[in-house]
Amino acid sequence: MQDKPLKTEIGYTTPEAITVRGKNLTDDLLGKLDFVEMMLFTIFGKIPNDNEKKMVNHILVTACDHGLTPSAMSARLTYLGAPEAPQAAIAAGLLGAGSVFLGTTQNCAQMLASAAKDLPDAPDRDTLMQCARQLIQTSRDKNQAIYGIGHPIHINGDPRVPVLEQLSKELGYYGKHWQLMQTVQEVFFLDRNKKLPINAVGAVGAIICDMGLDPMIARGLMLVGRAGGLVAHLYEEKHNSIGQQIWDLVLAQDKRNIAPSR
Amino acid sequence: MQDKPLKTEIGYTTPEAITVRGKNLTDDLLGKLDFVEMMLFTIFGKIPNDNEKKMVNHILVTACDHGLTPSAMSARLTYLGAPEAPQAAIAAGLLGAGSVFLGTTQNCAQMLASAAKDLPDAPDRDTLMQCARQLIQTSRDKNQAIYGIGHPIHINGDPRVPVLEQLSKELGYYGKHWQLMQTVQEVFFLDRNKKLPINAVGAVGAIICDMGLDPMIARGLMLVGRAGGLVAHLYEEKHNSIGQQIWDLVLAQDKRNIAPSR
Amino acid sequence: MQDKPLKTEIGYTTPEAITVRGKNLTDDLLGKLDFVEMMLFTIFGKIPNDNEKKMVNHILVTACDHGLTPSAMSARLTYLGAPEAPQAAIAAGLLGAGSVFLGTTQNCAQMLASAAKDLPDAPDRDTLMQCARQLIQTSRDKNQAIYGIGHPIHINGDPRVPVLEQLSKELGYYGKHWQLMQTVQEVFFLDRNKKLPINAVGAVGAIICDMGLDPMIARGLMLVGRAGGLVAHLYEEKHNSIGQQIWDLVLAQDKRNIAPSR
Amino acid sequence: MQDKPLKTEIGYTTPEAITVRGKNLTDDLLGKLDFVEMMLFTIFGKIPNDNEKKMVNHILVTACDHGLTPSAMSARLTYLGAPEAPQAAIAAGLLGAGSVFLGTTQNCAQMLASAAKDLPDAPDRDTLMQCARQLIQTSRDKNQAIYGIGHPIHINGDPRVPVLEQLSKELGYYGKHWQLMQTVQEVFFLDRNKKLPINAVGAVGAIICDMGLDPMIARGLMLVGRAGGLVAHLYEEKHNSIGQQIWDLVLAQDKRNIAPSR
Repeated sequence: MQDKPLKTEIGYTTPEAITVRGKNLTDDLLGKLDFVEMMLFTIFGKIPNDNEKKMVNHILVTACDHGLTPSAMSARLTYLGAPEAPQAAIAAGLLGAGSVFLGTTQNCAQMLASAAKDLPDAPDRDTLMQCARQLIQTSRDKNQAIYGIGHPIHINGDPRVPVLEQLSKELGYYGKHWQLMQTVQEVFFLDRNKKLPINAVGAVGAIICDMGLDPMIARGLMLVGRAGGLVAHLYEEKHNSIGQQIWDLVLAQDKRNIAPSR
Repeated sequence: MQDKPLKTEIGYTTPEAITVRGKNLTDDLLGKLDFVEMMLFTIFGKIPNDNEKKMVNHILVTACDHGLTPSAMSARLTYLGAPEAPQAAIAAGLLGAGSVFLGTTQNCAQMLASAAKDLPDAPDRDTLMQCARQLIQTSRDKNQAIYGIGHPIHINGDPRVPVLEQLSKELGYYGKHWQLMQTVQEVFFLDRNKKLPINAVGAVGAIICDMGLDPMIARGLMLVGRAGGLVAHLYEEKHNSIGQQIWDLVLAQDKRNIAPSR
Repeated sequence: MQDKPLKTEIGYTTPEAITVRGKNLTDDLLGKLDFVEMMLFTIFGKIPNDNEKKMVNHILVTACDHGLTPSAMSARLTYLGAPEAPQAAIAAGLLGAGSVFLGTTQNCAQMLASAAKDLPDAPDRDTLMQCARQLIQTSRDKNQAIYGIGHPIHINGDPRVPVLEQLSKELGYYGKHWQLMQTVQEVFFLDRNKKLPINAVGAVGAIICDMGLDPMIARGLMLVGRAGGLVAHLYEEKHNSIGQQIWDLVLAQDKRNIAPSR
Repeated sequence: MQDKPLKTEIGYTTPEAITVRGKNLTDDLLGKLDFVEMMLFTIFGKIPNDNEKKMVNHILVTACDHGLTPSAMSARLTYLGAPEAPQAAIAAGLLGAGSVFLGTTQNCAQMLASAAKDLPDAPDRDTLMQCARQLIQTSRDKNQAIYGIGHPIHINGDPRVPVLEQLSKELGYYGKHWQLMQTVQEVFFLDRNKKLPINAVGAVGAIICDMGLDPMIARGLMLVGRAGGLVAHLYEEKHNSIGQQIWDLVLAQDKRNIAPSR
């Protein structure tokens, strides 16, 4: 029934050794690689160079946490009911990483990779403008959001973007996808007089493409980084719970919910 | 209704800035900390020292991946049905991190922390033996597993344990919890002639306790590390799917499931 | 490697037919059984009698919904980020069904089944009082909550309990577990002057035991019933979203989060 | 900050009563409605008529279970690691209900609703053929799958389809969407000589549209029905585990994984 062997290139185990990507976990990796190196080695089968490792660290730092987001609230509300299963709370916090928040880095990278696939490596301004207009048109035709621009809170510009741009330039990951993303922002202003600054999603989407990585990695890194932030929320929730307060607060908005008089 | 303010110490956002643990994300953290520093800073509110950071990296490397585990299989089988939602596949892969695999580091750390709470910092052998026997008795009385010993595959010893022990010693995290864990193993051999070597769960549980961290952090770190490994599985699954093969293979075991002749 | 055949008694598929518990899905079940009959047939391998079916319906109705619970909020906050993956939102809503809310019916049924296992079918009052006191003592010794009594809102009595008691009596499922649960409530009042009325969790836990079912079924039914209620929340959320309002409301509690002036 | 009141029309709670859709849960619903009536009442705010209730039961029966699917395997593999959190296993089993399996009923209903929105109630054959060809063209233009046809196992026809068609006709839910779905199948045969019979997803998608319901309800009902089937798998897994066998079987395919000799 199966011609292709059912196996993973990622690793296997014998009584004596655990092998990951052809190396012995305990002889070659544990104690020698840090986590980001190990993760990238597990994903891609080669140890990242220094710049790749730095850039991935910056993306993970960007994803880690920003306070009481829907992700943190879902995790805390889940922990409230099942403190014996923190993995369920972390999972609940990750499940919203879809096409609107957090996971959007993948959609953005897909949008940029697809629009830029015939773009030369050093496109001139006219080519970029044309490509950006085409990207916008394609998204509209497919009735799809344009990812990576605008932010409900950072309306004058997402403070993460200039820092990520600077870091990308330093590390050699400022290429045609970054430029296309910036041109999309510019076209919105020029053609429609709309001020929609690039957001962190747009920056991360561009970086992943300029690093030459699969768009799925964009969402994957956001999930790993955010898992770290969610550990912080559960740790705080365990020692100083606010999940119940969130519930009480929401119920109190609807005057029909009458709390007991004690 | 609420006297205590509903807020998190972790962070907040204004139109101009994102603040994490009192520092400006873009001025003070992004580009300055790596991911493990950022995660520990987010959890504990202080930047880890070098040894803490190294030890946490070693734990994350340990957790990252070991081939086709139930965790990787759940993630791949979920991706097979919902490739548009990789966050759901990662979540499915984390949800089994309970009291039997992966999440067990927390149960083990709780077991050790509770048993060792009255143990002096440098216990003598008799005190350790007594404490280990008490730990075993308490677990039996509660009808609970003894965490951290034995392994279905690594029956002659888990190869991760001596490396983690060595790294713990180098970094200053080999203390009474490690010694207690080792004494539990010894007591099983002495009292019952059972060879149940310490496994990676026992090593990580002991390290977390000897670092002075909350047992929940033990499970949290396994989840973060494993999230990294699951990204590798989804990336491979996307380009070289084995989810369908797993399904076909399992169905083929039951001769009543007849595949179509085409 | 495997002696026991890897197969499920639940069902299998051939090109021509789907078989569930030995019956042909399309000839024997679809159009002939309703959902509750089908579910119980799938779980237990026999078609439920009329009273079993009615009692299970009452439990599912009890579980279905009660407004903006943590379960509904997690689902809505997840949907906000990933509207393309409603299954992730439903899953997030179910993940908190642990030892504190919703899933507690299983813990309660386990507590009652274990305490009542040597109780005669028609225990006299003294025997019940002694058994209830023993149950309380055992829970304290294990440092475990006493499930099924008390409610943060229904402080004068959970309105579902008398109705479930009446329905249990009508259908023949009012037995020693119900009586034990009621005696636990009574003992709290007599011995400690604490008014902790039975809650819906206590009623469902007792019913499951008096139906002779495995405690796990208690949690299983809560999850199925609540999945139905969560569909209602997502349907409302899709057409009249309040997820964003919940987020805004929570952020607004912390005066450090300053919303943009537009 | 919020003009629109933050409340749900679904329900609320006071110390004395739980109100669902304006009715008192314990006076008006519990004991009076069965689960399917309660669920539909919770979703839509009105008690379904007899035919709606029957049709929804048939969909839930269709969704309930079909043996060792990826959904059942994910649930069992998750339970293997976290038997103390069955809600995590049920959630893991639901998370794959995306655009490839199970959840596809929603994609199919969206496809049909969108294609048929200008179709008259009783379209003639030419109009249907034109609409079906347009549907196929639109899906190709969007690079989207055509949902509801073909099946990897039931290659000569999905046995559920004729039964669901017959039941739809009896209950008055055989309308233009069913006809369009059948015409899509016909056009594939006429225009491309491809035999791609309608599958259960196509039937359920058509029924939901012919009932006048939102496509999301199609996925919602599959999730509720499947949750019931997953309870059966966990109940079997608890008493006769095959999760470990699945793991062993998969590992044994890769000859590099050497099991210990004991």
